[in-house]
Amino acid sequence: MNVISATIITIGDELLIGQTIDTNSAFIGQELNKAGIWLKRRIAVGDVRDEILDALRAQSRDNDILIITGGLGPTADDITKPALREYFNAGVRIDDAALQNVHDIFSRFGRIPSEVNLKQAEVPDCCTVLPNRRGTAPGMWFEQDGVVYVSLPGVPHEMKGLITDSVLPKLLERFTLPAIAHRTALTAGKGESDLAAHIASFEAALPGWIKLAYLPSYGLVRLRLTGRGDDAGAVNAALDRHFAELKTLVGEWLVADTDSSLTGAVHAALKEAGKTVGTVESCTGGYLARLLTEPAGASAVFTGSVVAYANEVKMQVLGVPAETLQRHGAVSEETVRALVEGGLRVLGTDYVVATSGIMGPGGGTPEKPVGTIWIAVGDRERTETLLLNYRFDRARNMELTANTALNFLRKFVLKNGK
Amino acid sequence: MNVISATIITIGDELLIGQTIDTNSAFIGQELNKAGIWLKRRIAVGDVRDEILDALRAQSRDNDILIITGGLGPTADDITKPALREYFNAGVRIDDAALQNVHDIFSRFGRIPSEVNLKQAEVPDCCTVLPNRRGTAPGMWFEQDGVVYVSLPGVPHEMKGLITDSVLPKLLERFTLPAIAHRTALTAGKGESDLAAHIASFEAALPGWIKLAYLPSYGLVRLRLTGRGDDAGAVNAALDRHFAELKTLVGEWLVADTDSSLTGAVHAALKEAGKTVGTVESCTGGYLARLLTEPAGASAVFTGSVVAYANEVKMQVLGVPAETLQRHGAVSEETVRALVEGGLRVLGTDYVVATSGIMGPGGGTPEKPVGTIWIAVGDRERTETLLLNYRFDRARNMELTANTALNFLRKFVLKNGK
Repeated sequence: MNVISATIITIGDELLIGQTIDTNSAFIGQELNKAGIWLKRRIAVGDVRDEILDALRAQSRDNDILIITGGLGPTADDITKPALREYFNAGVRIDDAALQNVHDIFSRFGRIPSEVNLKQAEVPDCCTVLPNRRGTAPGMWFEQDGVVYVSLPGVPHEMKGLITDSVLPKLLERFTLPAIAHRTALTAGKGESDLAAHIASFEAALPGWIKLAYLPSYGLVRLRLTGRGDDAGAVNAALDRHFAELKTLVGEWLVADTDSSLTGAVHAALKEAGKTVGTVESCTGGYLARLLTEPAGASAVFTGSVVAYANEVKMQVLGVPAETLQRHGAVSEETVRALVEGGLRVLGTDYVVATSGIMGPGGGTPEKPVGTIWIAVGDRERTETLLLNYRFDRARNMELTANTALNFLRKFVLKNGK
Repeated sequence: MNVISATIITIGDELLIGQTIDTNSAFIGQELNKAGIWLKRRIAVGDVRDEILDALRAQSRDNDILIITGGLGPTADDITKPALREYFNAGVRIDDAALQNVHDIFSRFGRIPSEVNLKQAEVPDCCTVLPNRRGTAPGMWFEQDGVVYVSLPGVPHEMKGLITDSVLPKLLERFTLPAIAHRTALTAGKGESDLAAHIASFEAALPGWIKLAYLPSYGLVRLRLTGRGDDAGAVNAALDRHFAELKTLVGEWLVADTDSSLTGAVHAALKEAGKTVGTVESCTGGYLARLLTEPAGASAVFTGSVVAYANEVKMQVLGVPAETLQRHGAVSEETVRALVEGGLRVLGTDYVVATSGIMGPGGGTPEKPVGTIWIAVGDRERTETLLLNYRFDRARNMELTANTALNFLRKFVLKNGK
């Protein structure tokens, strides 16, 4: 089987001193992997001429493809372009399309590009320009001694746009890649190691050319089957068989049998039931609403929320009885039930999901330590509640609570949404 | 100046296929940088013997320190330890303290360690063990030909604990390090290239041992000065001088003269003024509330929000007149003003920030295309509004709107919060 290997070279001091977390490489790794390209290494170097040139020389020796990101900004510390000119021993040319793009982007804001901005259209004369519809720095495609070099801006949405619109299509055209296919199942509510134990014999029985990957994230685990081979038909047929078996094995925790988000699955369940949801949030502070409004077209299933961080808001906006708060506390089953009632009345939705808890680091007591969180989901007939006891930091408690609440809502809709 | 350079080698397939985002390297980079160690490169390789050995050989040539993370788990695909044994041509020994640690950790959960778990105490006989109080895989410290090799588990909180408790103290003892210091200014409302042009002469006049870095992110730009030298006093004195000049130059857009977040600056302004804020969100769908409740202790300045995604919620919960919505539309100055009024009444806060706009991809019209967004901030005396016209995708429109709204709020508080 024909293996095409790639290495990502990320350029920028900010990645070395830890000012920026490198999310670009994860995205590029995923996309190359899906396309059947083996990502061999990831290298990050600073804005240092020699470092960039050394990395290009060393990595071009045993890779077919080098993806270079970053250092294309208009400022003085961005030196990728001069380094590439030197490496390819190339001159400079102004790319008319790139120049027009700079003017277009600025005119959209009724502004005149400066000299510095216009320099973005200067490219090494040996490269093919990849148009960047999202920013002023164009992507650049080079070939030398059978190796493809792609230089992309480091701004995530610009890089992603270029990878999807230009780089992947051109790579698929340029190289003969093995047939590769994936099947992804999204599960919630069972930990990675428990899942692994549960499906150990399934995993052991997989043929060598089908790999199972666990992708855990805050209470969710994606299970991805990846099959490689020369015959696409055979690869897909085998994947379908094994994926069907996998889905039965994890059925109890299965959220979606596509690579969708948990929010996507919640939206699908609500659309299927033709129902709407609102959120009433204390400890999640609007995060559930934020997640539910992330996908386009959210207004079809989501109408609104009340973030009741302070008790006054719980009482005055949602009519939670002062007595409930006094007797049981804001973090209690009684209070989240009252929050659901209030939300159904105030927001007028079919369902309401409510949260109240102690995310930390402060606010814990011996009876209710940090990580004590109540969740409730209800409609006009019934309300179900769930008590969580986490012992993590604020950020992790927040992520886990949000995913658990959304999955609790999803199950409630599937059960009662008929 | 004595420059000590380090490279991070991260081991694990999951980092190459994009299953996990490499947050460890960012943390290690920050810590090394603070200590005055120059992080030269970051390399990520898969769980492949030859790749690991090649990386160790190549990187030991021009580095003083190699920090190796990952691949120390008990499962079959974790091959860092055998690779290190081979590299150092070392035998195996059982480390008693590490073995005791495995037993202690398991007994804490009332469990018996398996053979596999106990193997975690096996280490190459040429290493110094760095105790891991947070997990079963010990850290390992090697020295060969004047180069220090540190191998750490990839689990973030275990790695962090080892870096802080053992690795940094030992490195500071082992090497004489130059003084390094940073000054960071957070700016909002002016693009990277405009800022660069505005401070070009300042940047040109900086001495060679002080670097200026631009770190842009959705309408914000961090400007970081980094100074290196042998005399900490001199470095800091010079940085203070240049940083003071920089702050004056960018004063108009200066949000914070520390490396804080925009949310942090908003919280600081509200605490300073002794005031509270609530949000009323249509198009931002709870994102402002989410950001304002991210930091610990948010309840001191944030009391609650109404996410009024649907017009019914705007009318029924916030009392926006149906006529206002009919005549001017939900995305209009009149509506965001009414949202602020309603919010002040319903949430009872000192300030309310409101948003209404079209984030896309759907919902645009010729008069109000996608990216048309109204923001309003008000207290009981006055309300100020701002019209945005973005032409980006939903995610970027959302990030830019959120940062712009938070900064608009911050300025309003500074102006009227006396």
